[in-house]
Amino acid sequence: MVLAKNRQVVLISRPDGIPQAEHFNIVEATVPPPSAGQVVVRNEWLSVEPAMRGWVSAVANYSEPVALGSVMRSFAAGRIVASQHPDWPVGTAVTGMFGWQEFALVDAAQIEHRIDEADLPLSTALGVLGLNGVTAHYGLLQVGQPKPGETVVVSTAAGAVGSCVGQIARLHGCRTVGIAGGEAKRALCLERFGFDAAVDYKAADFHERLAEACSDGADVYFDNTAGPISDAVMAHLNVGARIVVCGTASVPSWNPPPLGPRAERNILVKRARMQGFVIFDHLDCYTQAHADLAEWVRGGKLKYMEDVLHGIEAAPDAIAGLYRGENLGKRLIRLDESA
Amino acid sequence: MVLAKNRQVVLISRPDGIPQAEHFNIVEATVPPPSAGQVVVRNEWLSVEPAMRGWVSAVANYSEPVALGSVMRSFAAGRIVASQHPDWPVGTAVTGMFGWQEFALVDAAQIEHRIDEADLPLSTALGVLGLNGVTAHYGLLQVGQPKPGETVVVSTAAGAVGSCVGQIARLHGCRTVGIAGGEAKRALCLERFGFDAAVDYKAADFHERLAEACSDGADVYFDNTAGPISDAVMAHLNVGARIVVCGTASVPSWNPPPLGPRAERNILVKRARMQGFVIFDHLDCYTQAHADLAEWVRGGKLKYMEDVLHGIEAAPDAIAGLYRGENLGKRLIRLDESA
Repeated sequence: MVLAKNRQVVLISRPDGIPQAEHFNIVEATVPPPSAGQVVVRNEWLSVEPAMRGWVSAVANYSEPVALGSVMRSFAAGRIVASQHPDWPVGTAVTGMFGWQEFALVDAAQIEHRIDEADLPLSTALGVLGLNGVTAHYGLLQVGQPKPGETVVVSTAAGAVGSCVGQIARLHGCRTVGIAGGEAKRALCLERFGFDAAVDYKAADFHERLAEACSDGADVYFDNTAGPISDAVMAHLNVGARIVVCGTASVPSWNPPPLGPRAERNILVKRARMQGFVIFDHLDCYTQAHADLAEWVRGGKLKYMEDVLHGIEAAPDAIAGLYRGENLGKRLIRLDESA
Repeated sequence: MVLAKNRQVVLISRPDGIPQAEHFNIVEATVPPPSAGQVVVRNEWLSVEPAMRGWVSAVANYSEPVALGSVMRSFAAGRIVASQHPDWPVGTAVTGMFGWQEFALVDAAQIEHRIDEADLPLSTALGVLGLNGVTAHYGLLQVGQPKPGETVVVSTAAGAVGSCVGQIARLHGCRTVGIAGGEAKRALCLERFGFDAAVDYKAADFHERLAEACSDGADVYFDNTAGPISDAVMAHLNVGARIVVCGTASVPSWNPPPLGPRAERNILVKRARMQGFVIFDHLDCYTQAHADLAEWVRGGKLKYMEDVLHGIEAAPDAIAGLYRGENLGKRLIRLDESA
């Protein structure tokens, strides 16, 4: 069996902060045929995550940094095109950490999930039914522990995780306040994702609008940004509030950490709980979360949005674009099936 | 019945930060005889707490601010000297929020506890067996949730709460690291309170010494200080660490909050949990905590230390003195029984 050439995006230098196009190179390789126990996946969709900033950083983090010269780590969804494993026949749709490349030669054990939902688009396996949805589900319900009637505030509320958080919170009987950048994203929060209120953090009257939206205070703050946006929310915490630290998208560099107003007194006085989590620690929750998410998507209760780039050439600049805030919805790269 | 004159410490102005002697006045009053259901307590011991800074602040806090012109709020221990309540005969030793005054006329419902431990000094009811001990017990065990073998770091480790935290942590099989200011307090941590390691935050090599003491990282940080001391500990958090926010003694003013390095990324990467608590929310835990503490004190497993000032004249400057770090042990004011 001869496979097509395999274009790969490799990391060539480490950014100080947000990875830019210049930190990557596109190279061509061949795909060796699978040995016993291996499969070759043709990637149809590559994922682009804010968390990739951390994956390429040499600063202590929650995963080993991507090695210089190696293929950029990434979730991907695709179909098996060659197999030497009886459980994984050619044609099976799968997801896994297959990297930013057109083809991935992997041990079957590296496959994370078989995609069973033939009725739903394959791309959902990387967003609303994948890492983003499961992150929202676990982080909100297990870490944030919202109760019906409480107010849940979410930053990057129009994004892949934030939009799920808001919708899941409403499904649990909470009032939801979304924070997003710009009028288009603010409108998305209200019109597509059903937030009860939405506030544009770029607007001159952000603080006043947030105060109005949080007139009953904030019981759960699902924090995807850190920084001044979070400082503004912290001023509205209710007694017993939970702050779910999921991401730090608004802070370009943590080396050294930027200065901000100290939070300890507020956390003490409000008896608040601020907790970080990394979804990879909780993959035992995947099955239940995935089942809930798929049911909600099928029932029209959980809406999602995708921001699709085309071709592997779009990958190197794709993370930087996320941090520029140019995407509306979950950012994905569609690879040309005719490649 | 004619009672002696009653000297009282009243709040006359609000500090911007730490209350100083000038914010109080000593006045003389008479004690009216008790009406039905009331008792008069002669205070023998008055408590001095770091938390009093918050009690006199008009800034949003966890309790109503002490009104200007009224007696300073305080725990006290004493004996009933006049009673119009059958359950509370003259001679009963009691504690309660009796205020910085020599005599307190109170409804019996305002009595918090009858002191049953005739074998232990009355003063312990305000320290190791009172608010400080219960704060340490609840905060460490319920909020910090230490497991045997873990490292527990405590700030203000020679203080009334910190010294209890360290000893309770050791009783639970943890390795303990105390942080205190100055060589005398550092030595107390090691020699009297049995910390496995102790570090002087005023020393030039504080960061190096802390790194040595935390060579296996910190699993629980019981934070009584906030500020740069806490920043130093945060650099050593292990994955899954718990930060118990109990006090903010190192920060003179929170209006506005001072700047410090943002903690969100560290909390995320370390999947840490930072949680504030106020012991008054958890008085249902008092009975069990008190029983444990009394058993440990009697068994010589829980040592305590008192810093005794004499006479009500010492009260106005007593809080400022705490923040100057001049006390060794729980600060109390002994009122002259011959008064």
